Amino acid sequence: MNRKICAVITARPSYSRVKTALQAIKDHTKLELQLVVAGSALLDRYGNTIDFIEKDGFTINEKVFMVLEGENKTAMAKTTGLGVMELANVFYNLQPDAVLTIADRFETIATSIAAAYQNIPLVHLQGGEVTGNIDEKVRHANTKLADIHLVASEDAKKRVEKMGENPNCVFNTGCPSLDIAAQVLKAPKLDFNPIEKYGGVGGNISAKGDYLVVMQHPVTNEYKAARENVLKTLRVIDDLNIPTFWFWPNVDAGADGTSNGIRSYREINKPKNIHFFKNMESVDFLKLLVNSKCLVGNSSVGIRECSFLGVPVVNIGTRQNRRLRGENVIDIDYNEDAIKNAIKLQLANPKKTKSNIYGNGDSGKKIAEVLANTDLNFHKTIMY
Amino acid sequence: MNRKICAVITARPSYSRVKTALQAIKDHTKLELQLVVAGSALLDRYGNTIDFIEKDGFTINEKVFMVLEGENKTAMAKTTGLGVMELANVFYNLQPDAVLTIADRFETIATSIAAAYQNIPLVHLQGGEVTGNIDEKVRHANTKLADIHLVASEDAKKRVEKMGENPNCVFNTGCPSLDIAAQVLKAPKLDFNPIEKYGGVGGNISAKGDYLVVMQHPVTNEYKAARENVLKTLRVIDDLNIPTFWFWPNVDAGADGTSNGIRSYREINKPKNIHFFKNMESVDFLKLLVNSKCLVGNSSVGIRECSFLGVPVVNIGTRQNRRLRGENVIDIDYNEDAIKNAIKLQLANPKKTKSNIYGNGDSGKKIAEVLANTDLNFHKTIMY
Amino acid sequence: MNRKICAVITARPSYSRVKTALQAIKDHTKLELQLVVAGSALLDRYGNTIDFIEKDGFTINEKVFMVLEGENKTAMAKTTGLGVMELANVFYNLQPDAVLTIADRFETIATSIAAAYQNIPLVHLQGGEVTGNIDEKVRHANTKLADIHLVASEDAKKRVEKMGENPNCVFNTGCPSLDIAAQVLKAPKLDFNPIEKYGGVGGNISAKGDYLVVMQHPVTNEYKAARENVLKTLRVIDDLNIPTFWFWPNVDAGADGTSNGIRSYREINKPKNIHFFKNMESVDFLKLLVNSKCLVGNSSVGIRECSFLGVPVVNIGTRQNRRLRGENVIDIDYNEDAIKNAIKLQLANPKKTKSNIYGNGDSGKKIAEVLANTDLNFHKTIMY
Amino acid sequence: MNRKICAVITARPSYSRVKTALQAIKDHTKLELQLVVAGSALLDRYGNTIDFIEKDGFTINEKVFMVLEGENKTAMAKTTGLGVMELANVFYNLQPDAVLTIADRFETIATSIAAAYQNIPLVHLQGGEVTGNIDEKVRHANTKLADIHLVASEDAKKRVEKMGENPNCVFNTGCPSLDIAAQVLKAPKLDFNPIEKYGGVGGNISAKGDYLVVMQHPVTNEYKAARENVLKTLRVIDDLNIPTFWFWPNVDAGADGTSNGIRSYREINKPKNIHFFKNMESVDFLKLLVNSKCLVGNSSVGIRECSFLGVPVVNIGTRQNRRLRGENVIDIDYNEDAIKNAIKLQLANPKKTKSNIYGNGDSGKKIAEVLANTDLNFHKTIMY
Repeated sequence: MNRKICAVITARPSYSRVKTALQAIKDHTKLELQLVVAGSALLDRYGNTIDFIEKDGFTINEKVFMVLEGENKTAMAKTTGLGVMELANVFYNLQPDAVLTIADRFETIATSIAAAYQNIPLVHLQGGEVTGNIDEKVRHANTKLADIHLVASEDAKKRVEKMGENPNCVFNTGCPSLDIAAQVLKAPKLDFNPIEKYGGVGGNISAKGDYLVVMQHPVTNEYKAARENVLKTLRVIDDLNIPTFWFWPNVDAGADGTSNGIRSYREINKPKNIHFFKNMESVDFLKLLVNSKCLVGNSSVGIRECSFLGVPVVNIGTRQNRRLRGENVIDIDYNEDAIKNAIKLQLANPKKTKSNIYGNGDSGKKIAEVLANTDLNFHKTIMY
Repeated sequence: MNRKICAVITARPSYSRVKTALQAIKDHTKLELQLVVAGSALLDRYGNTIDFIEKDGFTINEKVFMVLEGENKTAMAKTTGLGVMELANVFYNLQPDAVLTIADRFETIATSIAAAYQNIPLVHLQGGEVTGNIDEKVRHANTKLADIHLVASEDAKKRVEKMGENPNCVFNTGCPSLDIAAQVLKAPKLDFNPIEKYGGVGGNISAKGDYLVVMQHPVTNEYKAARENVLKTLRVIDDLNIPTFWFWPNVDAGADGTSNGIRSYREINKPKNIHFFKNMESVDFLKLLVNSKCLVGNSSVGIRECSFLGVPVVNIGTRQNRRLRGENVIDIDYNEDAIKNAIKLQLANPKKTKSNIYGNGDSGKKIAEVLANTDLNFHKTIMY
Repeated sequence: MNRKICAVITARPSYSRVKTALQAIKDHTKLELQLVVAGSALLDRYGNTIDFIEKDGFTINEKVFMVLEGENKTAMAKTTGLGVMELANVFYNLQPDAVLTIADRFETIATSIAAAYQNIPLVHLQGGEVTGNIDEKVRHANTKLADIHLVASEDAKKRVEKMGENPNCVFNTGCPSLDIAAQVLKAPKLDFNPIEKYGGVGGNISAKGDYLVVMQHPVTNEYKAARENVLKTLRVIDDLNIPTFWFWPNVDAGADGTSNGIRSYREINKPKNIHFFKNMESVDFLKLLVNSKCLVGNSSVGIRECSFLGVPVVNIGTRQNRRLRGENVIDIDYNEDAIKNAIKLQLANPKKTKSNIYGNGDSGKKIAEVLANTDLNFHKTIMY
Repeated sequence: MNRKICAVITARPSYSRVKTALQAIKDHTKLELQLVVAGSALLDRYGNTIDFIEKDGFTINEKVFMVLEGENKTAMAKTTGLGVMELANVFYNLQPDAVLTIADRFETIATSIAAAYQNIPLVHLQGGEVTGNIDEKVRHANTKLADIHLVASEDAKKRVEKMGENPNCVFNTGCPSLDIAAQVLKAPKLDFNPIEKYGGVGGNISAKGDYLVVMQHPVTNEYKAARENVLKTLRVIDDLNIPTFWFWPNVDAGADGTSNGIRSYREINKPKNIHFFKNMESVDFLKLLVNSKCLVGNSSVGIRECSFLGVPVVNIGTRQNRRLRGENVIDIDYNEDAIKNAIKLQLANPKKTKSNIYGNGDSGKKIAEVLANTDLNFHKTIMY
């Protein structure tokens, strides 16, 4: 009998990150993939991730509506509580041999609790990293609830082990988001017109010359500052007047601030050099990135994919603090002059060094192998 | 303005454990206690803990009904999810400066999430210990969600720090359950008739001569074995024919197994030497304990209070595995002969050595001092 | 394609009442039965109805744990809210052609909402009757949410139609609980020893001579009086000193009062002429009833089954107020003398007249026929 | 002691409708208003009703986030279930003497259940009317759960009584939405520039000449047709080329269809004669209405306020079917030609007859008087 591995996808970036791992699980002769799509991944206004998942050929076993409207911290907590209740049912019905929880978004702990409390072995992807917000707490709590750890770097592996996890249960499989990056590196040409293919709103810019890409997410602990911060970046980008493809943030307690900032800036200033997208297929997105002059913002894409691809990055603010990074990144505070100068620096002397700190582009397969061959157990004690 | 400290009591043993800390918070000139009584602490069939709390003079700010009936693992998970949703409301309304979550029962993570996700500094009591079930996962996940750690031993302190917590936020305050034990040690005379005062059911035994005390809880991961295990202890105790005061287990996924085992054994065998209680005031319970010949079962009381009091203990099974213990304890498996022999050994050559590994009897005050004077913060990153 | 009829069983008495209808649906060539067992029907301490359901040969499609502990009115409301959330999932997954909600227990409105709000045709069983508590409100609200009405008497039919329901959608199928009564009437001999077969607790009485049966439920609106009321009946029955088989009440907001009253009376007074049961198979129960001298209490069994069977009834209090009744019933208040006199009257001059006001014993089949052949629709407007 | 009347506002139109009643309750010497704002009334993307409430000088006692994202029927059911759970807490804490539930939106039944199940007298506003969707079921179920009925017309009064409600508990107070209309009739001049004051998006039109107003809501049972229907109206209005102020629909299971229809039509066709608003203060809205040539759509405003104000209405589709209406209304199907002709007819020969079928403009005060002086009771039985 094949091992049933139940993965819970709760948001767009989580899906992009683990897509090749899901494919490798699906394709593995000893494994059966059970796919649960939940939370904002089901919702239209966060980019209908579920449509991409289905287009990629995955069968969805269960859909879990759990996002409570409100976009404040209380709603975030209650969404998580609701997620525990709903996912407890789902796992009870699907009876998986192991459950996969991904990284550190606030609602991922719902997956962890619903599995761990029902004595289902829990596999945590991408533990052991360091940031500095609520996701920091969530990530390490996920580690302590999990039985198997699939981490993305040696750095992360050491950290998970030091927290008292059994080294036999910690595997550095690299980050599966690099698997797609590795494919893109083999055929990096931008072979589509982004606006024609993806619509979006804003200036009708071209991707044929130099252009920038921006991804800026709200930072949970700085909820009120989200709007102000995104306005700084908007003014800099508007002022630089270089064609720029800007991606909307994913859902978070601060989503409202960032999204509202963008919306009102657009209405009033109508910046002609910026085009806004909600979402893009991973391969297309990485092609857009690899051909860009620089990624600006605070996305983890700047830390992972861009280090592997050798794309220059201007990383703003604290969101990626203490994450292991390559030499392609310039770190900068939320200061308009500083942001502008950093972008100019990357345009003049681009930092394009590639590195393999987050894997070699074969993580999906490594992950499937671990899941097929490791002992699955839900009974653990701290090591020391 | 006084700091508002919101403590959430979800079960009888949690209350007993922290009672002196609650009192010290209430009495502290710089602190204001907000008390939330939740879960099984509200329920009649788990001993109406709330009545004891009110009789002790505490004002209850909120009651949270969250226990979903079912007594299986799915219900346990859903109770936790419901707890997150309810407690999110409670904290939103009470606006505490810090929330106190206690130890490692499954539903304590609901308190942790509801506080942490709303950016309320979280204080975790009794982290850093080692057991081997779902409470092991819960305890360490609570640690990773918490900002301040009040641990009960040097052993626990080291463990919490090694998990990457900031040593400035880890305080060895000892276990407040010993504060009551310290009072009892000063006046240990059994000055009441247990059956007269507390009713209960079973044989009409006397506490004037030699007697035993039994507390045996179900072990979550061995759900189905709970009934069988308690029957072993019942047969041994029945057979030994020494007057025995037996305390019902607290609620857990296996409560049913243990409770059913006891109920059916009683109906059929009507053991004359055993009297059963649901609950007892802490001071009375400790007096009963300090005058007993031996505590039998798997309660943490055998590890903590009894080490401080110098009461001999026969500790059965895995529930207290790897907990730091004094020299008063004999550890034994679920084997009837072994249990019987261990009890006989403690009767013949009682191990009465006292120790201070879990504190000196002043933990409540130490806890209040830390809460009054430490910086409260909800922003942390792992240390290494 | 067969019509999928999804029935939701939430409690022991609901199951007994509709068992033959479920069987007829299951057996019908044009229908497929989807069975959901929920609420107290899943719980050990309410008699493990689910075991009886499975023993009767039904396949259970979904189990829904939704009972929030607390046994107060707030918990009752929250159990209902939780039920809506859970059953919404269940119906989404099962995609039935119609949902069956039964009678008027508080949680049945959860079934109604979860179906109606998802545009699933809702069939309500046993609407149009009259009582006087929260179940009165629930019953008629169920009627207004339902599309098809299967009522148990002409009286009820008129009432449902007068509320504005389309007469084409109201069917007097009789009460299916009488189907079993009709079988029992054909072979009424008490061919088993109740205590041997069902255990229970209390006096070791015989069913060979004269005996009484008691069923007394708490009345929601008189929550605090439940304990007092049951004590009155207990004292009368104890005093009369006739062998009596007493059935525990089902779960309700007042269950605690009634159950506690019984428990404490038993502990203190140890009445030798009373034996207590939690549950009994329907056929056996009806045999016990048909051979008894009188049914005492406030159960609807006294109104329905006993009118059909011609069993004398002493009906106490307001719980069955305004229900259509046969000539077998003496109605009486909660007054010890009155209760005692009424029982004596039934013993001396038993009222044994049979009637068919609640059907002819073929309701199950009638219900299945309606479900197989009526237009199913979820769009209705009030008639006048 | 003043009677505490707890009103639950769950959506923008509900607030507009009862605003003067809330004011009259607040101002009444024998009453105390407890205001709970819940559901979409709290949410930014449904027009931030809460801001209007606060600006109107009301104190909000509790906020209840309960809207589950998803905009499908399952989410609608689950939102309702969640509402029951949350509101049960709220009423437990506020301990009102009566709870006010308003009209027939799907989530209003949550208010009804949470009150009725806790034995709090329930007052239902605007029962007894007729429509034809899920709100039809909800409205009458609310009636059956309620103890006091405050209806808006003689027609509605008869219907509620015929459903078996006690005539002593049914009061025709008229519709409080007309109270504001009565004020506006006294000073009907359009003394503000709508676009300057309220922003909004779309063509920069003037309210100085002739103009139309459109309000079109999705109809729950025709979920998929919502988009198509709104496009018909959009094309007609675009084609007529008369300045038109268009109001976005409120939240419903079909909100997405209607809103998406509007959004995509705007993006593609950029109609110059239409300006879109999310919300407007009631008085301003009624001034805009009273000076308009015609109201187009399916809003109940066309039936109530416009009959009182004598504003011509083109009412499209089934949403207002069987509602009592004045002579100002032309009813029409979703047919582009028919809609266009009806509007032209109203422009050429406007139907401006005023009527008092929904009250005289003093409903708020009448409602407060009933609440101050009627017996409050939670125990009822059907009348016949």
